Amino acid sequence: MKPLIIQTDFGTCDGAVSAMYGVAYSVSPELHVSDLTHEIPQYNIWEASYRLIQTLAYWPEGSVFVSVVDPGVGSNRRSIVVKTVTGQYIITPDNGTLTHVKRMCGLTAARVIDEQINRLPNSGESYTFHGRDIYAYTGARLASGVIEFEGVGPEVDLENVVELPVVEAILENDAVSGTIDVLDVRFGSLWTNISREMFLKLGVKHGGRVEITIENDTRALYKNILTFVKSFADVNVGEPMMYVNSLDCLAVAINQGSFAKAYNIGTGTSWRITIRKAPRVVYE
Amino acid sequence: MKPLIIQTDFGTCDGAVSAMYGVAYSVSPELHVSDLTHEIPQYNIWEASYRLIQTLAYWPEGSVFVSVVDPGVGSNRRSIVVKTVTGQYIITPDNGTLTHVKRMCGLTAARVIDEQINRLPNSGESYTFHGRDIYAYTGARLASGVIEFEGVGPEVDLENVVELPVVEAILENDAVSGTIDVLDVRFGSLWTNISREMFLKLGVKHGGRVEITIENDTRALYKNILTFVKSFADVNVGEPMMYVNSLDCLAVAINQGSFAKAYNIGTGTSWRITIRKAPRVVYE
Amino acid sequence: MKPLIIQTDFGTCDGAVSAMYGVAYSVSPELHVSDLTHEIPQYNIWEASYRLIQTLAYWPEGSVFVSVVDPGVGSNRRSIVVKTVTGQYIITPDNGTLTHVKRMCGLTAARVIDEQINRLPNSGESYTFHGRDIYAYTGARLASGVIEFEGVGPEVDLENVVELPVVEAILENDAVSGTIDVLDVRFGSLWTNISREMFLKLGVKHGGRVEITIENDTRALYKNILTFVKSFADVNVGEPMMYVNSLDCLAVAINQGSFAKAYNIGTGTSWRITIRKAPRVVYE
Repeated sequence: MKPLIIQTDFGTCDGAVSAMYGVAYSVSPELHVSDLTHEIPQYNIWEASYRLIQTLAYWPEGSVFVSVVDPGVGSNRRSIVVKTVTGQYIITPDNGTLTHVKRMCGLTAARVIDEQINRLPNSGESYTFHGRDIYAYTGARLASGVIEFEGVGPEVDLENVVELPVVEAILENDAVSGTIDVLDVRFGSLWTNISREMFLKLGVKHGGRVEITIENDTRALYKNILTFVKSFADVNVGEPMMYVNSLDCLAVAINQGSFAKAYNIGTGTSWRITIRKAPRVVYE
Repeated sequence: MKPLIIQTDFGTCDGAVSAMYGVAYSVSPELHVSDLTHEIPQYNIWEASYRLIQTLAYWPEGSVFVSVVDPGVGSNRRSIVVKTVTGQYIITPDNGTLTHVKRMCGLTAARVIDEQINRLPNSGESYTFHGRDIYAYTGARLASGVIEFEGVGPEVDLENVVELPVVEAILENDAVSGTIDVLDVRFGSLWTNISREMFLKLGVKHGGRVEITIENDTRALYKNILTFVKSFADVNVGEPMMYVNSLDCLAVAINQGSFAKAYNIGTGTSWRITIRKAPRVVYE
Repeated sequence: MKPLIIQTDFGTCDGAVSAMYGVAYSVSPELHVSDLTHEIPQYNIWEASYRLIQTLAYWPEGSVFVSVVDPGVGSNRRSIVVKTVTGQYIITPDNGTLTHVKRMCGLTAARVIDEQINRLPNSGESYTFHGRDIYAYTGARLASGVIEFEGVGPEVDLENVVELPVVEAILENDAVSGTIDVLDVRFGSLWTNISREMFLKLGVKHGGRVEITIENDTRALYKNILTFVKSFADVNVGEPMMYVNSLDCLAVAINQGSFAKAYNIGTGTSWRITIRKAPRVVYE
């Protein structure tokens, strides 16, 4: 019996998520089912992809993730199950939801769901709720050992697993630049795709100062100098700072404030951030 | 050990739901407890009733639902447990919360909770939190097998189980009409009480066109022609469409938009929808 | 295997809570993990403290609470585990989160977490997510019996466990006065720190009338007479009333309305409420 974890953009106001739980417990009442989040912004495949990479590594080998952000439900997009390098399974429409996991963690195999076998009995007339009828059902069968990975359906080429376009972080002319991938929503922090490893090549140490520039397609929204710290408590309340987030990438925040709200910062590949080592200012 | 599923209008900002979980786990630490939703709009018995019928059928026989939307707490409204035709139990104040399940699924028996026996020990001075002291406690005892259904209290007549007024869908003069029962909140779809079966008597096939009229007590809010499709991907992004929802009833939506917000549509028996077969338009 | 209950101010929009669940299930897949709430207002230690006392007593002996509202993450604030008089454990930064439980329930022992032993392996470079790397990890090990309470780290003096300043309720000149500690958020009720026991010394019985005065630092916001009732159903819809809440303290509400919104009432030690027995009014 392996953990089953569900992510959707359904919210929790109605019965959709509970119907998925019910399908899972009908497969096996011994399952431990829990939620990643159901607050993915509707149809936002990018954010679904990001929340998987944020979470995956903390779950034991064999854990089964079901992710349903599915603007193409009812189209001919495939439903797939992948196995990650770290041993977890993810069941999802093959629409880009696997972008970050494929790139940052790695996949070892992918199979297309055979919907003749892996579909909730008597659900044939429902064309709009694959989350319940196919994904939760297949996930529960896999997590409870009713089927093995091989029983999901035929193997497919990993190369064909759909990826959204990404912009790689780069180190150039004593600056690192990348994109603002996602917000730590509740705290208003900006999470970038610049790794700690790449950033450290600038030679900045904890307590050192960096110049941050944030631009989107049309204009610069922020340019200022702030401190690179270990954690929030190293700066004053209300002070901006840069730190390494829980994904080992660079993040920018205001201690006990919201950086995103303060400067109207959004996320996605059009939101660019550049970090330079700033001179230590000495007032004489 | 059967699943225990909890629905309330308490929200999840405070400790009320967790206190109910604690009571349940105190009865048996082996229980699997999960949430239907806690975001029922406060005191909205109609929506509580609807979320039960939306979910119930996907849970195994013997599952125990606890639903606490209880504007009459402390009055002499009864607390009851019913058994459904499909074998689940529902524990709730007898205030109309069972309307849809009674009509659309069917009940086989009802019992009034004997609060002398089925009340959390030492909770006698609390008159305002029956959800914790009576419903969660009784639900956990039933789900874990500490008591049988017969142990809940004396049997009562099914006819007396309270129902809210409903307006039946009808087929008349080549049109079906019914009410807008509820929204798929996050996606802004309208869920009607018109069954697929009744609608199909109009002779409309997938890809066919229908004329939709939506009115409330005072005026018409929408009258237009749209396509009856299998699922969202069959129309363009931003295009309105009609489909069969996960309850096998007709629903109206805008693909990746919100029909409810676009036209200010509400729910309840005063919100009427009429569907006619529309002529196929041929441009020459 | 004891229940593990998690409270944070993280919200549920991203993967932070699920990462904590994953760490817990990695320690033991048999654990039953559930949520107190993740909607504590950011950095609001007072409310975190209150939600613990609201919930704790309903959980079995040995249950392990993990509470992460941690504005000082990365500072030298201690991480501690306490055992309560009623036998539950709470793991939290020692920042005042234990204020209400220490005063109203009582603690029997406290230990500082030895982070050399009780830290998720290979999480050494993350300075910002102790909730996952230390608290969830230690909580899961304690709940699953991998470690005993003694294995958490060295014992510390209960007197030093940090408490936020509180203002005690008092009985004086035929009036009781206290503070508005917290809201029942969804229903807009005011929860005071005045116990039923103290209030009853005024000699008011159910159905009797009381004069309520509410003031904050700068002005009086409410002064009126209302009825002391058993529960909401004892007054008309829209009528204000006073009752005993589920913590056995006095609360003020409007039946099916929001008292807090109606009169712009806030919470904290600067929000004072005074209750007097009101004369019974006889119209002749």
